[in-house]
Amino acid sequence: MRPSGRKLDEMRAVSIETGFTKHAEGSALIKVGHTHVLCTATIEDRVPPFIKGSGLGWVTAEYGMLPRATNTRMRREAAMGKQGGRTVEIQRLIGRSLRAGVDRSALGERQITIDCDVLQADGGTRCASITGGWVALKLAVNKLMKAGDIVSDPLVDPVAAVSCGIYAGQPVLDLDYPEDSEAGVDGNFILTGTGRLIEVQMSAEGQTFSRDQMNQLMDLAEKGVSELVAAQKAATA
Amino acid sequence: MRPSGRKLDEMRAVSIETGFTKHAEGSALIKVGHTHVLCTATIEDRVPPFIKGSGLGWVTAEYGMLPRATNTRMRREAAMGKQGGRTVEIQRLIGRSLRAGVDRSALGERQITIDCDVLQADGGTRCASITGGWVALKLAVNKLMKAGDIVSDPLVDPVAAVSCGIYAGQPVLDLDYPEDSEAGVDGNFILTGTGRLIEVQMSAEGQTFSRDQMNQLMDLAEKGVSELVAAQKAATA
Amino acid sequence: MRPSGRKLDEMRAVSIETGFTKHAEGSALIKVGHTHVLCTATIEDRVPPFIKGSGLGWVTAEYGMLPRATNTRMRREAAMGKQGGRTVEIQRLIGRSLRAGVDRSALGERQITIDCDVLQADGGTRCASITGGWVALKLAVNKLMKAGDIVSDPLVDPVAAVSCGIYAGQPVLDLDYPEDSEAGVDGNFILTGTGRLIEVQMSAEGQTFSRDQMNQLMDLAEKGVSELVAAQKAATA
Amino acid sequence: MRPSGRKLDEMRAVSIETGFTKHAEGSALIKVGHTHVLCTATIEDRVPPFIKGSGLGWVTAEYGMLPRATNTRMRREAAMGKQGGRTVEIQRLIGRSLRAGVDRSALGERQITIDCDVLQADGGTRCASITGGWVALKLAVNKLMKAGDIVSDPLVDPVAAVSCGIYAGQPVLDLDYPEDSEAGVDGNFILTGTGRLIEVQMSAEGQTFSRDQMNQLMDLAEKGVSELVAAQKAATA
Amino acid sequence: MRPSGRKLDEMRAVSIETGFTKHAEGSALIKVGHTHVLCTATIEDRVPPFIKGSGLGWVTAEYGMLPRATNTRMRREAAMGKQGGRTVEIQRLIGRSLRAGVDRSALGERQITIDCDVLQADGGTRCASITGGWVALKLAVNKLMKAGDIVSDPLVDPVAAVSCGIYAGQPVLDLDYPEDSEAGVDGNFILTGTGRLIEVQMSAEGQTFSRDQMNQLMDLAEKGVSELVAAQKAATA
Amino acid sequence: MRPSGRKLDEMRAVSIETGFTKHAEGSALIKVGHTHVLCTATIEDRVPPFIKGSGLGWVTAEYGMLPRATNTRMRREAAMGKQGGRTVEIQRLIGRSLRAGVDRSALGERQITIDCDVLQADGGTRCASITGGWVALKLAVNKLMKAGDIVSDPLVDPVAAVSCGIYAGQPVLDLDYPEDSEAGVDGNFILTGTGRLIEVQMSAEGQTFSRDQMNQLMDLAEKGVSELVAAQKAATA
Repeated sequence: MRPSGRKLDEMRAVSIETGFTKHAEGSALIKVGHTHVLCTATIEDRVPPFIKGSGLGWVTAEYGMLPRATNTRMRREAAMGKQGGRTVEIQRLIGRSLRAGVDRSALGERQITIDCDVLQADGGTRCASITGGWVALKLAVNKLMKAGDIVSDPLVDPVAAVSCGIYAGQPVLDLDYPEDSEAGVDGNFILTGTGRLIEVQMSAEGQTFSRDQMNQLMDLAEKGVSELVAAQKAATA
Repeated sequence: MRPSGRKLDEMRAVSIETGFTKHAEGSALIKVGHTHVLCTATIEDRVPPFIKGSGLGWVTAEYGMLPRATNTRMRREAAMGKQGGRTVEIQRLIGRSLRAGVDRSALGERQITIDCDVLQADGGTRCASITGGWVALKLAVNKLMKAGDIVSDPLVDPVAAVSCGIYAGQPVLDLDYPEDSEAGVDGNFILTGTGRLIEVQMSAEGQTFSRDQMNQLMDLAEKGVSELVAAQKAATA
Repeated sequence: MRPSGRKLDEMRAVSIETGFTKHAEGSALIKVGHTHVLCTATIEDRVPPFIKGSGLGWVTAEYGMLPRATNTRMRREAAMGKQGGRTVEIQRLIGRSLRAGVDRSALGERQITIDCDVLQADGGTRCASITGGWVALKLAVNKLMKAGDIVSDPLVDPVAAVSCGIYAGQPVLDLDYPEDSEAGVDGNFILTGTGRLIEVQMSAEGQTFSRDQMNQLMDLAEKGVSELVAAQKAATA
Repeated sequence: MRPSGRKLDEMRAVSIETGFTKHAEGSALIKVGHTHVLCTATIEDRVPPFIKGSGLGWVTAEYGMLPRATNTRMRREAAMGKQGGRTVEIQRLIGRSLRAGVDRSALGERQITIDCDVLQADGGTRCASITGGWVALKLAVNKLMKAGDIVSDPLVDPVAAVSCGIYAGQPVLDLDYPEDSEAGVDGNFILTGTGRLIEVQMSAEGQTFSRDQMNQLMDLAEKGVSELVAAQKAATA
Repeated sequence: MRPSGRKLDEMRAVSIETGFTKHAEGSALIKVGHTHVLCTATIEDRVPPFIKGSGLGWVTAEYGMLPRATNTRMRREAAMGKQGGRTVEIQRLIGRSLRAGVDRSALGERQITIDCDVLQADGGTRCASITGGWVALKLAVNKLMKAGDIVSDPLVDPVAAVSCGIYAGQPVLDLDYPEDSEAGVDGNFILTGTGRLIEVQMSAEGQTFSRDQMNQLMDLAEKGVSELVAAQKAATA
Repeated sequence: MRPSGRKLDEMRAVSIETGFTKHAEGSALIKVGHTHVLCTATIEDRVPPFIKGSGLGWVTAEYGMLPRATNTRMRREAAMGKQGGRTVEIQRLIGRSLRAGVDRSALGERQITIDCDVLQADGGTRCASITGGWVALKLAVNKLMKAGDIVSDPLVDPVAAVSCGIYAGQPVLDLDYPEDSEAGVDGNFILTGTGRLIEVQMSAEGQTFSRDQMNQLMDLAEKGVSELVAAQKAATA
């Protein structure tokens, strides 16, 4: 029933290649099916003004898509002179989600910026960015720990994200682009490695949904995230 | 326990004054406690390029806050030269939510723009915008029906929104600003008059939450929305 | 002869509601006929760089119009990415006019920002902004005096503004929108409570005018402003 | 008494050099004392959308200042990414003033753009722009008449502008920069060759003025404009 | 003598991986040492307005750098709201250079946009973009030829680019970042496969150079480009 | 053969008028045929952050064109809200070229900004800007030397620029606009008074060129620059 032939609760193939670029304190190329996102982590010894002197750290994110990551070329945001509404919404979600999984006082007064740049898109780029972004973040934090700059690990529990939706009337896990563009309901679920919830966003387009359906999507998300967390652990072991 | 002395499942006082301004096809000033939002609906005989010729209508929204709607003055977005990320995120949510409650083929090829401008803010402005925005939308649609421009009502079921969150460890309904700024988890719930879900957004700040807590927030939201829908019906009767 | 049936030298009904919003140090909703402007005053303990250390205070203003304050919806300036030329011109006039009525050394090194946001427009919004803005300014100054932050009142003489113009060949007082859009000459007159001039702007559109006509408009303006000043005094008594 | 040694009612030396640049349909370098403005007129066979099909022409203006036209370098507006409020206000005034002196139906459906670029500034740049701009406009119109593109002259009466103000307590004509920066009241007066008024703007900075003073400034302006009009006529004879 | 231990006339290792992303009509990841650039080609059936109806095609380019492609993170241009001067200069060079190698009438009235995005930077990104961009362009053109959309190959001669400079007093080929940041003279040389010149840019920083040195750099460039052209031919064979 | 009737190696008439405006520390109006550029130099006692404390000075440039400097009116960049790519490219070239001729440690920690504004354009505006800009720079430096602010002249060798190109198959010196718009190859050559090279840029449009042709253009450039340097010396003697 799914265009890809996958089962209803089947994720796409996931791979995470660490160290894809050499300058960043952490970098990972995550592939979730044909969705490929390059995530890098940058450590800086400064924090935003509103937490200066608080002893707390900060994690933030920026998101971008190469113009021809998609089937037809999109205009380059730098050339347009601003980030689109979708971009702003996504990068705020990535930053908020990763931050929720960080013990900011263990991190200390420094900022880590996660850049997520989509090299190729096939649906689910914001979820792949969070999942891959966490790996880049982890690698950067490992570097700080190894150098003795921080002593207790601020990343106690991994953070990963998956999309689920109602496609052709059925709840399905990990929407790809052909499904995403047809789904009447889709949601993004950001969970920790121990199954705690960080962010849940479900929205209907042109229809509505019931609490039962909401729970079915939630069940699928728990399954998907547990697989993603396994991949994160393998990549950062 | 709540700063306002409200019970855990108690909404703030809600009032909706229709016809607050005279030029718009529909207008309403909604007050949810000290949060006051002026919502207007504008009908235009044109649709965005991507649905031209489809026979379908479009509903979109813009959101703004007067600079001194808040306790300290914020910079005017027009003077800054762009809408902030928070504004963009909110107005996309308002548009998407209202659109989900519209039968776009019954509306026909026309666009209705809902402007939501916060005159005074005390938490929950995006939810008040959706609830008040639906009233402005309804009034505009009534005008179209009265004029015979459309024949079947495209607004079959009201759309309303409320925020819930975990404040001081307890799930509470309809966060005001003092609660919102302290809450570890907060969510926005957009439902229809018949209790169907349109959009659910829950996010943790500096902590996580469980599926049980998610369900408790959902229960509170259902109660709150049913009260808001009663107010909408009274205002548009 | 006037569309509204008013006499040539008759103002529209004027009302000023103070305390319309609660956060600002001063706020007033002024209604001049169907023109409604919300004015708020914000006090800050800082001044622009060019007067730092001078011991003088500063008063400045910003102006905006809600998109559907007018008969057809205007694009939101924040969404367009800049304030239009008309907005810039108006807010500079408001700031300059109010400043001319302030003893800046009595005010001391602090800045008061007057935000004038048009909720509904029917001609004369810049004049209503000045008249209502002065009320918000006065309320904020009263608060400073009550708190003992300043000792002598920097607002010795009220500032109010009215438009006059030549409509259908006749000099008329307080143009509403139907008159304004047809008038061959229109002017804005900003005066003090004692009849001193602060700013006079007269301009012809598609015709010219004589010194005699200029003097007739000036006479009307003096009458109008005296009525507005009475309303200001009543509101701030 | 005046820094320049001029009498109270004495203009600075005025010269107008036509044809200063070769590409424009009309061009003039106007010098009013040390204020030098290059004005060019561009004719285009199109009008703004709002008058398309009306048979009427349009005259508009743009204003700029070279970064080092002034005593200390100002930031280049193109590099800052926008025109400042003062620039916008001035160019709207220039366009409005020149337009008031044009018979737009005699001009026919075409647009003339007047660019006024200040090469060197010493006070009164907006007035010099209007006076010099009218010369550029006249030259362009002459070209149209010569070519037979229009038959009756749309410029029946010249338009010129001068500033007057109250300096050291005295009404003076044609403020230069040292006077302008000290004047308590200054005004811009735009008149036609026959002494009709087009635009009058008087504003007080840190004080107020009386109707008597307003009339004294008006008298000076009439004298100044008559001298400017003589210079315009000589330049375009 | 060179930080990398290379000989004066030795290129870095070059690899070109075609088909790195799947959506574009042509794509290549070029690696010149540690400089990695992803180049994609997009074909569109439209041309810029200024050549519409001419029968000629157009080739243009856009250039970007991921924020953490470099040793320290640069601000994202989309977030800054504009492309920097360096970016603008580079993308104009890429477009101009590739266009010079195209028979635009053989291409026919269509546009090919080459996006060059630097994933990792170590000097010479503009040259790598041109060399890799030509490969993406070639692949896209091959697709058009295969489909019969064009009949004669518009790419008669490959286009490739290399930088040379004077480092520590010696002319060297293919500057990497440590050399580039110290070089007193550096140049970019864009040549065709048959050794014809397309663009030559040499510039001194803090010193000058002689015609003799210019000729030595030119000799090195010819050697380097011949090796790059061989790599291009191998990749597109 | 040349539209102007000039010989292949003949420059246009060159004149340099110093002191064209009075406020700048140095100013010159350079005319190269019908290309007229006003160049001013501004001295400031500050340097960009990246060289603060280094003891070195900085020279930078900005470039602009009046809207009607050209045959058809171009949009004003300040009104468009940004500098075009061509402007950015040109002003970076001017700054880099002039800087290469400056002993920055003799200049000391101060910045000189060269503004080059094209009053009338007929090809070769960037070269005229460099040649005239050097004169303005020299005059400003002379002022510093006279005042004893610097002791040894940081401008040891003049910097001048000329364009050459291949027009109608022939190498020609100093392209004017009719030639420039037809030339298949054109180049900008920036040299010092003693014939050292500072920057060389040659580019082909729609064709390619040989090393022989490159050398012929270089020969012409040396001749042209020697004439320009003579004019610079005469103007600053």
